[in-house]
Amino acid sequence: MDYRIEKDTMGEVKVPAHVYWGAQTERSVENFKIAQDINKMPKPIIQAFAYLKKAAAITNTALGVLPAEKCDAIAQVCDEILEGKLDDQFPLVVWQTGSGTQSNMNVNEVVAYRAHVIKGGALTDKDKFLHPNDDVNKSQSSNDTFPTAMHIAAYKMLIEVTIPGITKLRDTLSEKSKAFMHVVKIGRTHFMDATPLTLGQEFGGYAAQLTHGLKAINNSLAHLSELALGGTAVGTGINTPKGYSELVAQNIAALTGLPFITAENKFEALAAHDAIVEAHGALKTVAVSLLKIANDIRMLSSGPRSGIGEIFIPDNEPGSSIMPGKVNPTQCEALTMIAAQVMGNDVTIGIGGSNGHFELNVYKPVMIYNFLHSARLIGEGCVSFNDKCAIGIEPIEANIKKHVDNSLMLVTSLNTKIGYYKAAEIAQKAHKEGTTLKEMAVKLGYVTPEEFDAWVVPANMVGEIKD
Amino acid sequence: MDYRIEKDTMGEVKVPAHVYWGAQTERSVENFKIAQDINKMPKPIIQAFAYLKKAAAITNTALGVLPAEKCDAIAQVCDEILEGKLDDQFPLVVWQTGSGTQSNMNVNEVVAYRAHVIKGGALTDKDKFLHPNDDVNKSQSSNDTFPTAMHIAAYKMLIEVTIPGITKLRDTLSEKSKAFMHVVKIGRTHFMDATPLTLGQEFGGYAAQLTHGLKAINNSLAHLSELALGGTAVGTGINTPKGYSELVAQNIAALTGLPFITAENKFEALAAHDAIVEAHGALKTVAVSLLKIANDIRMLSSGPRSGIGEIFIPDNEPGSSIMPGKVNPTQCEALTMIAAQVMGNDVTIGIGGSNGHFELNVYKPVMIYNFLHSARLIGEGCVSFNDKCAIGIEPIEANIKKHVDNSLMLVTSLNTKIGYYKAAEIAQKAHKEGTTLKEMAVKLGYVTPEEFDAWVVPANMVGEIKD
Amino acid sequence: MDYRIEKDTMGEVKVPAHVYWGAQTERSVENFKIAQDINKMPKPIIQAFAYLKKAAAITNTALGVLPAEKCDAIAQVCDEILEGKLDDQFPLVVWQTGSGTQSNMNVNEVVAYRAHVIKGGALTDKDKFLHPNDDVNKSQSSNDTFPTAMHIAAYKMLIEVTIPGITKLRDTLSEKSKAFMHVVKIGRTHFMDATPLTLGQEFGGYAAQLTHGLKAINNSLAHLSELALGGTAVGTGINTPKGYSELVAQNIAALTGLPFITAENKFEALAAHDAIVEAHGALKTVAVSLLKIANDIRMLSSGPRSGIGEIFIPDNEPGSSIMPGKVNPTQCEALTMIAAQVMGNDVTIGIGGSNGHFELNVYKPVMIYNFLHSARLIGEGCVSFNDKCAIGIEPIEANIKKHVDNSLMLVTSLNTKIGYYKAAEIAQKAHKEGTTLKEMAVKLGYVTPEEFDAWVVPANMVGEIKD
Amino acid sequence: MDYRIEKDTMGEVKVPAHVYWGAQTERSVENFKIAQDINKMPKPIIQAFAYLKKAAAITNTALGVLPAEKCDAIAQVCDEILEGKLDDQFPLVVWQTGSGTQSNMNVNEVVAYRAHVIKGGALTDKDKFLHPNDDVNKSQSSNDTFPTAMHIAAYKMLIEVTIPGITKLRDTLSEKSKAFMHVVKIGRTHFMDATPLTLGQEFGGYAAQLTHGLKAINNSLAHLSELALGGTAVGTGINTPKGYSELVAQNIAALTGLPFITAENKFEALAAHDAIVEAHGALKTVAVSLLKIANDIRMLSSGPRSGIGEIFIPDNEPGSSIMPGKVNPTQCEALTMIAAQVMGNDVTIGIGGSNGHFELNVYKPVMIYNFLHSARLIGEGCVSFNDKCAIGIEPIEANIKKHVDNSLMLVTSLNTKIGYYKAAEIAQKAHKEGTTLKEMAVKLGYVTPEEFDAWVVPANMVGEIKD
Repeated sequence: MDYRIEKDTMGEVKVPAHVYWGAQTERSVENFKIAQDINKMPKPIIQAFAYLKKAAAITNTALGVLPAEKCDAIAQVCDEILEGKLDDQFPLVVWQTGSGTQSNMNVNEVVAYRAHVIKGGALTDKDKFLHPNDDVNKSQSSNDTFPTAMHIAAYKMLIEVTIPGITKLRDTLSEKSKAFMHVVKIGRTHFMDATPLTLGQEFGGYAAQLTHGLKAINNSLAHLSELALGGTAVGTGINTPKGYSELVAQNIAALTGLPFITAENKFEALAAHDAIVEAHGALKTVAVSLLKIANDIRMLSSGPRSGIGEIFIPDNEPGSSIMPGKVNPTQCEALTMIAAQVMGNDVTIGIGGSNGHFELNVYKPVMIYNFLHSARLIGEGCVSFNDKCAIGIEPIEANIKKHVDNSLMLVTSLNTKIGYYKAAEIAQKAHKEGTTLKEMAVKLGYVTPEEFDAWVVPANMVGEIKD
Repeated sequence: MDYRIEKDTMGEVKVPAHVYWGAQTERSVENFKIAQDINKMPKPIIQAFAYLKKAAAITNTALGVLPAEKCDAIAQVCDEILEGKLDDQFPLVVWQTGSGTQSNMNVNEVVAYRAHVIKGGALTDKDKFLHPNDDVNKSQSSNDTFPTAMHIAAYKMLIEVTIPGITKLRDTLSEKSKAFMHVVKIGRTHFMDATPLTLGQEFGGYAAQLTHGLKAINNSLAHLSELALGGTAVGTGINTPKGYSELVAQNIAALTGLPFITAENKFEALAAHDAIVEAHGALKTVAVSLLKIANDIRMLSSGPRSGIGEIFIPDNEPGSSIMPGKVNPTQCEALTMIAAQVMGNDVTIGIGGSNGHFELNVYKPVMIYNFLHSARLIGEGCVSFNDKCAIGIEPIEANIKKHVDNSLMLVTSLNTKIGYYKAAEIAQKAHKEGTTLKEMAVKLGYVTPEEFDAWVVPANMVGEIKD
Repeated sequence: MDYRIEKDTMGEVKVPAHVYWGAQTERSVENFKIAQDINKMPKPIIQAFAYLKKAAAITNTALGVLPAEKCDAIAQVCDEILEGKLDDQFPLVVWQTGSGTQSNMNVNEVVAYRAHVIKGGALTDKDKFLHPNDDVNKSQSSNDTFPTAMHIAAYKMLIEVTIPGITKLRDTLSEKSKAFMHVVKIGRTHFMDATPLTLGQEFGGYAAQLTHGLKAINNSLAHLSELALGGTAVGTGINTPKGYSELVAQNIAALTGLPFITAENKFEALAAHDAIVEAHGALKTVAVSLLKIANDIRMLSSGPRSGIGEIFIPDNEPGSSIMPGKVNPTQCEALTMIAAQVMGNDVTIGIGGSNGHFELNVYKPVMIYNFLHSARLIGEGCVSFNDKCAIGIEPIEANIKKHVDNSLMLVTSLNTKIGYYKAAEIAQKAHKEGTTLKEMAVKLGYVTPEEFDAWVVPANMVGEIKD
Repeated sequence: MDYRIEKDTMGEVKVPAHVYWGAQTERSVENFKIAQDINKMPKPIIQAFAYLKKAAAITNTALGVLPAEKCDAIAQVCDEILEGKLDDQFPLVVWQTGSGTQSNMNVNEVVAYRAHVIKGGALTDKDKFLHPNDDVNKSQSSNDTFPTAMHIAAYKMLIEVTIPGITKLRDTLSEKSKAFMHVVKIGRTHFMDATPLTLGQEFGGYAAQLTHGLKAINNSLAHLSELALGGTAVGTGINTPKGYSELVAQNIAALTGLPFITAENKFEALAAHDAIVEAHGALKTVAVSLLKIANDIRMLSSGPRSGIGEIFIPDNEPGSSIMPGKVNPTQCEALTMIAAQVMGNDVTIGIGGSNGHFELNVYKPVMIYNFLHSARLIGEGCVSFNDKCAIGIEPIEANIKKHVDNSLMLVTSLNTKIGYYKAAEIAQKAHKEGTTLKEMAVKLGYVTPEEFDAWVVPANMVGEIKD
C-alpha cells in the first residue's frame, strides 16, 4: 500500500497515502486491533461530531477567534460528513481511549485535511489550510466534545428512531384494543384460568405499558439536552472565549433542530454520564415491557392445535427446516432477543457510568455504543414487530369462546351471592368431576339453574368497557 | 406447642393456638421453608396493607357494601398494625406465591381474627365477627391489593427515606462546594494530571449529580402514584361497587398524606410493574452517581503519605486489626457496596418485571423486596456517609498546592499563545528531564520568564467561579 | 441502658454493660446505621470466623507463639459460637468497612471478653485474660481472616445446602423421567406444536440441566478451597510464624471436615475474590436452569381448562382471595423469583469483585452476603420445589393424548417418504381447512390411508428410549 | 436491481438475480430490517455451519442416505465458505427467529445453489443438483444445527483467540512479577498506605488471577464440547439414520481438530444453552479480573507528578486534544471498557438462557452473538493490552522508594515487639505531627533508635520471596 508520512506531537507515522486522516488516527488504528471489523465507532457519533464541529466553528467565528474563511471550510467538510460522503474516513473502534479522544482527533484530522484538499492543496503539503488542533478543535477538548457528541447522537436517535418506533407499535396496540374491545375471553393469572376480560382490555394493557414507557423516555430527555461543550479540558472552560458555551449550544440546537442547551454544570457533564445512565434506564423499562408483550403474544398465538390459540399472527416465513408447514412467532422472538440485549446493555452502561474517576469518565465510547445500540434496536424492533406482526393480529373467536365457556373461574360471580366458601366448593368439585360449573352449582343445591344463568354471565364480568 | 384447628377452602390446618393468623398463612409457613429467618416480607409492605385495608373498609362502608361496625373493627386493627403492635403476626417470607396472595391473606386473617378478639371473641370460635375474605378482603383481590401495597410502600420509602437522605448529602456537598470554591487544585483526567480547577468546582459536580438523580426519582413518582386497587382479579374490577376505584385511592391518599390516584389502566397495573422498574432505574442512576462520588472521595483522601492526600475525611474507627494507627475510608466503602447492591437489584427487578404472563405479573414479592432494599440502603447510606464522612471533609491545602504547582498541564495556558505543538514539546521535555515547566519553556526559547509568569496562572485557568 | 467504658486505639467508647463486644464493635454500631434490622452480617460468616479463630489459636500454640491455656480459652468460646450460644453478640451489618475488619474485631472482642468471663473475670476488668488483637487475632489480619471466612462459609453452604438441594430435585426429576418415559406427547418449539417426544424425555432434559449445573458448582470448589489465612495485612504474611499458612489451613480442614488448603498466591486471595465470582457464576447457571424448568412446569400444568394441562402438580393452598377454587403453581413462582434474585446477585458480585484496588478488595461483605443468599435460596428453594411440587407431578394422560393425536407436525414423518415440500403442503392445507393430517394427505393423493397409518406413528417418532 | 423468482413452501419471492441465497433467506432480509448494517450473524457462526454441513454430508453418505456425489458438492461449497469466498452471501442479522432457522436455511440455500452453479447449472434452473432441505439439511433440523454451530464457534473462539490472548498477558505479568520480585514498595489497602510488599508480588497476584480464570474457562469446555447434532427437531433424532449422532460428532471433531462429542442428552442441548451460560460465566470472571488489573495499572502509573507514579507504562499516542504533552493509560481504558461490555453481555446471556420454553430455547442468536463478542473482545483486548502496555511496564524506582520510606505502616513490624496499642500510638502521633515513625517511636520512648533500625526493615516485611 502507498503511504505518506504524517506527524503529531510524538513524531512521524506512516499513513495510507489517500486517506484524509492523519497521525493520531493512524496510531489508534495500530494500537487498538480489537474487533476492528465489527465495532467501529457508531456512525451517529461521527455525525454528531460533524454538527458540533460546524457549530463550534460558527461560534468561534462569531466570537472573533476564527477567521470566517476557516469557518466556511470546516462547515463544508462537516456537511460532507453529514451527507455520508466521508464514511470510510473513520476507521476507529469503540475500544480505544475511554475519553474518545482519538475519534475526536479523527474528525479534526479529516476535517482539516479534507478541507485542505477542497481548497486545492495536497495531503502531502506540510502546511495546511486548517490545523486539526488549533483550528478545527478550537475552543474544544475531547473531554467536552465527546460527551457533547454522545448527547447529540443519543437525543437524535431517541427522537428519530426510538420514540417513533415505540409510538407506532403503541398506536397499533391501541387500535387493536379498540377493535377487540368486546371480545370476551378468559383471563389468566399465574398462567391459570381466571375471571374473564376482553381481548381489547388485554391489548389496552399493552398499549398502556408503552405509553408509560414513552413518558419515561421523554422524562429523560431534559438531562440529555444538556451539552458539555464549553467545559473543555476539565469543565472550567479553559481556552474558550466568553459566551462560548451558551452560543455553541444554541448553534447546535439550530443545526439539529433539537432543543439543546448548555449544561448547567460542566464538571458533572464531563466526569459523569448519568444522563446516559438515566435515559438508558428508561430504554430498559421499555425493553421489560416489550418482553412481556411479545411473550404474551407468542403464547396467545401458540398452537395451532395444542396451545392457547386465541389470536392469529401473520405467517411470514416457513418456520422449520425439518417440520413442514410449521409457522413460528418469529417477530416475537426477535423482539424478546432485543429486550434481553437491552437489559444487558443497561448493566454495561451502569458499570461504565459508575467507574469514572475525578474530572473525567473514561467509559464514554462503550457507554454510547451500548446506548445507541439499545435505542436503535428498540426503535427498529418495534417497527418490524409492528409491521410484520402486530398489525395482522386477529382474534380466533372459536377458541376464545370455547375457553371462556369452559372456565371454572366464572364462579367468582357467585361470591357476592353465596359467599366465597360455597363458590369454592362448586369450582373444586366441578374440576374434580369434570362437570360444568352450572351442573355442579345446581347439584350442590346452592343455586337454581335460572339463578346461575342470571348471575354467571361472562360479558357482565368484564367491568365497564371504554370504547 | 399448643395448636388450634383452622379451616380454609382446602380443609383443616393446625395453627399455633395464640396467633392471630389462620389456615392460609399457616399453609404458607409450611409450604415455603426458604430463608425464613432472613427474608420476611418487608415490614413496609405489611404497613402498606394496613393503610389499604382500612381505606377499602371505609370505601366499602361509604358505598354501602360493608356495615359501619365492621369498618370500624377493621380500621382499629389496621391502626394496631401501623403502630407496630402486631409485628410478630406476619411470619411469611418473600419466597411464596408470586402474586403475594398469601401475604394478603395473612393480613386478612390477622385483621379478622384480631378484631374478633378485640370484640371479646375467642380465636377458637367457629363464627367470627369478621370474615377474612368476605369482609376484610371485600371489593379486593390479591391481584390488586398487592400491587397497591407495592406502590404505597415504594412511594413512602422514597419520600420518607430515600429522597431526604440523598438531599441531605447533596446539600452538604453543595455547602462544601461553596466553602472550597477558591481552593485551586490540579484536575485529573484519565487519572492523570490535567489542567487545574477548584476543589469547590469538583464538589459542585458531585452535588449536580445528585440534583439530577433527585429529579430522576421525582420523575418516577407519577407512575408510582397510580394504584391498582379496584382492578380486583384481572383488572376488570369484578365484584367492586361503582365508584370504588376512585374513592379508595382518595382514601389511601388521605390516610397516607401522599398524592395517590387510581391507575388509569388497571390491566397494566396488575400484569406489569413497569412503575417499579422505572423508579428503580432512577435509584440505580443514583447508585451509579454515589459509586463515582464515594470512589473519588476515597481516592482524594488516600495516603496519608503515599496517596493523593488532597482532602481529610474523619477518622471514625481504627482501620486495621494488624496495622496500628491505620484509618480507612470506611463510609466510602459502605456506600460503594450499597451501590453495587442496588445495581444488582436493578437486574433482579428487570427480570421479574419482564417475566409476567397475561393478566398478572407473579414476581411481585421479589420486585418489591429488592426495591425497598435499594431505596432504604440509598437513603440510610447517604445519611451515614453524610454524617460520618462528608460533613467532616476538609482540604489538605499543603498537598493541594504542591500538586498544582508541579503540574505540567499548566502548559495548556500556552496553547492560545504559542500553539498546541510547541506547548506539547515543553511539557514532554520537562517531564523527561524532570524540570519545571517554566524552566523548560524558557530554555526552549518559546517564552520569556515574564511571559510565563503572566500567562501561566493556575487561578486564571479555572474559569468563572460561581460563588 | 447500662453502659461500661471500653477503650481502643482511638479512645473511650460507651458499650452496653453486659455485652461481650468492645469498643470497635460499638463504634461500628454507631457509625453504620444502615438497615440494621434486616442486614446483619450473615450467621454463616460468624460461624466461619469461629472455625478460623480456633484453628489459628491451635496453630499459634503448635508453633510456639501462643500459650496453650490461651488457646484453650479461645477454642472454648469458638465452640460456644458454633453452638449458637452467642448469636446475639454480633450486631454488625453488611454495610460496614469493605474489608470486614469490624466483624473480625467483633469476633476478636467477643472471644476475648467472653473467655475472660468464663475464666471468672468481669467485663469491667481493665486487664483481661485474652487481648482481642494480640491474642485472638494473633498471626492474623482482617485482610486474611475475612476472605478466609468467606471461603469457609461459601464452601460449607454449597456442600451442606446448595448441592444437596439441587441433587434432591435432580434425582426426583430423573425418577419422573424414568416413570414417564413411555408417555408420548407433543413437542413444542417456538411455543408451537412440533414433533412428539415422551414426557420422560422432556423431564430427562431438566435432570440433565441440573446434572450439568452440579458439575459447574463442583468445578468451582477448587478455587474456593484455597484459604487466604497466613497472608495477613497485604499477602506477605507479615507477623506470622514459619509454617503457619499450611498448618492453619490443615487445622481448618480438620475442624470443618472440608478439604481446605492454603492459597497458592496470597496476594490474589486478598486483592481479588474471583473464586466467589467464579462460583457464583455456577450458581447463576443453575438459576438459569431452574427458571427454565419451573417455567416449563407451570406452563405444562396450566389450565385447568384453557391452558396446556398436560401435567398435574399438587394443590398446596387456595390460590386466590377472590376466585374460589383457584389453585396456582406457587412453588414454580417462588423458584423463579429465586432465580431472578440470584441473577441480580450475580451482577452485584461481579461489580464488587471488579472494583478492588491494589492489595485489598473492599467489597468483601457485600460479595459474601449475596453469595450466601444465592447459595441458600437455591438449596432451600430446590428442596421446597421438590417436596411440595416435583414429587407430586403426574401426567394428565387424556390431555396428552388429545394433543398428540391432533398434531399437524406428525407430518414430519413423511419428509423421508414424500419430501419436505409435499409434506408442508399437507400440513398447511389441513391447518387451513381444519382437517386431520390423514384426511388431507389422502385427499391430496400423496399417500394412501394404509401408508399414512404405517408411516405416521407418534410412538415411532420419539427415537430410541433410554429406560 | 435484477431479480429472479425463488419459491419456498409459502410461495414465490423475488431474490437479487446473482446471489446464491434463495427464498427463505430473502424473506428474512425483508422481514427483519433491524440493525442490518451493524448486526450481521457473526462470521464464526457461518463458518461453524460450514464445518457441520460438510460433516453431516460425509456422515449421511457414510450411512448410506446421501449419494457420494452430492456429499462432494456440499463439501466443496463448505470449503469455499471456510476460505471466506462466500462472505457476502450471508446477509441475515442476529435479530431474526430465535432458533436461527433462517441462518440455517441461508447456509442450506447457498450451499445448494452455489453447488449447482459449480456443476454448471444456472441459478434460474427449476431443478437443481442439490435441494436445500432434502440434501443439504438432510438428517438435520435448525433446532440441532444452530446449537451445534454455537458450540463449534464458541469453542473455536475460546481456543483460538480467548485463551491464547489471556495466556499471553498472563505470561507477561508472570515475567514482570519475576523481574520486579525484589522491588520493595508500599502496600495499599483501602487505597491507604499499608505494610510493604514487592512489586513482583503485586504482579504475581495479577498473574494468579488470570491463571485461575484460565482454569475456569477450561472447566467450561467440557460442556461446550457436547454437540446437539442428531437431535433434529425436538431432541428425539427423528429422521436421522442409526449411528448418526456419534459419527457426525466424530466428523466435526476431525474437521475442526477439536474434541467434540455428541451430547449425552439432546433434549437439554436444544431446550437450554446452559453450556453457553456457564462458559460465559467464566469469561465474566476473567473480565472482573481484567478490570481489577487494568485499574490497578492505571492507578499505579498515574501522575506524572500528582499521582501515584510507581510504574511507567508506554506512551502510545498523544493523550489530549487540548492539553499538550499529556499521555494517558489508553490500553487500560480499552480493557476496562471491554470488561464492562462482557459483564453486561453476561446478563443478556443469562436472560436469554433462562427464557427458553419446552423443547427449544429461542434466544440462540442473541446468546451466541454476545458470547462470541465477549470471547473475542477478551482475547484481542488482552493481546492489545499486552503488546502496547504490559510488556513495557517498568518500575519508577525513585517514587517507589520515597513512598516506602515515608510509610507509617512500617510500624506493623513493632506489633510483635511492643504490642498493637503502643505501635498504634506511634503511628497516630507521627501522622499528626508530621514526623517520621522513627522520630516518634524514639520520642515516645518505646524503642531505641538502634532497635527501630533493626526491627523496622521494609525488605524484611515482605515475607518469603518466590523467585
